[in-house]
Amino acid sequence: MSELDTLIQLLARLPGLGPRSARRAALHLIKRRESLLEPLAAALAKAAHAIRPCPICGNLDTVEPCTICRDPERDATAICVVEGLADLWALERTGIFRGRYHVLGGTLSALDGIGPEDLSIERLLARIRPGQELILALNATVEGQTTAHYLADRVAGRGVRVSRLAQGVPIGGELDYLDDGTLTAALKSRRAL
Amino acid sequence: MSELDTLIQLLARLPGLGPRSARRAALHLIKRRESLLEPLAAALAKAAHAIRPCPICGNLDTVEPCTICRDPERDATAICVVEGLADLWALERTGIFRGRYHVLGGTLSALDGIGPEDLSIERLLARIRPGQELILALNATVEGQTTAHYLADRVAGRGVRVSRLAQGVPIGGELDYLDDGTLTAALKSRRAL
Repeated sequence: MSELDTLIQLLARLPGLGPRSARRAALHLIKRRESLLEPLAAALAKAAHAIRPCPICGNLDTVEPCTICRDPERDATAICVVEGLADLWALERTGIFRGRYHVLGGTLSALDGIGPEDLSIERLLARIRPGQELILALNATVEGQTTAHYLADRVAGRGVRVSRLAQGVPIGGELDYLDDGTLTAALKSRRAL
Repeated sequence: MSELDTLIQLLARLPGLGPRSARRAALHLIKRRESLLEPLAAALAKAAHAIRPCPICGNLDTVEPCTICRDPERDATAICVVEGLADLWALERTGIFRGRYHVLGGTLSALDGIGPEDLSIERLLARIRPGQELILALNATVEGQTTAHYLADRVAGRGVRVSRLAQGVPIGGELDYLDDGTLTAALKSRRAL
């Protein structure tokens, strides 16, 4: 197999790229040898070498513990539990949360055979201290909410406050386009003006 | 900027990946360090080093001239002119064409300021010999067809036969869903059964 075929096959394994777009991506890379192909090769080699999961929270970083866990300015009494890194990044982009994180690595799912032992739940239980707040920032899906309830049960009696993200109409959302579940949640959690 | 941000920004410059899917791709890569990230880094480095355009036809390959141009089994009297490499690959996948190629590198476009000197037209004219067939496998777009007509004019009187791909109903195509142009072309080029 030629170098080009190897490259295309590897690119096709990235999420969001199929065989056709992998071919386009390979062409795009080869046409931009100096501005894109070579920097990308170097960035991948560097990432392979330098990036590892944080032993405390599961975030990916080049330092251990990660930048967030070692930041003394961040509130160690608030731990935001997320399913995956993409969620952590999404919250960090808002800049609104100044506590620490805990990356579960997924959600409980009987269907997919994912039990508590497959997630970083024991590490979370070992981390929490009385007086802390545990913010369960899990997806508003069946699996996410099942996991949230499970976690709330497990930490009950450990002296931590447990909260979850508010559910309701998204900013810019039009009621006409929202599903019934969201509308129901938004109505139930209505606030006085 | 961290190694991870650099990687995400470079991935986001691939066609078909936006900022969000670039983040997903980066996570995917880091989770599969040995099976995907390291092989991809190596494949990119190899491609940067080994792959170059064929000086005859413009195909990309690790050998000069390319595998197609140097293959004595392939018919040197048939040259298939394509806009880009993706088209060459698409034709090669069918396995039906056993001649040589010529990659134009685009199409004439007054709107985008692309003239004959921006395409590999002079190199094509230098290549052709009397008795050859020139198959204009250009896209059935305005630009593709303009370019085809321009090429046909330029090679007139050089003793080469010029042909183009048939236009009509695609295999599996339903008439109800086809545009008027395709239907018109299919009707005009109808064949006796």
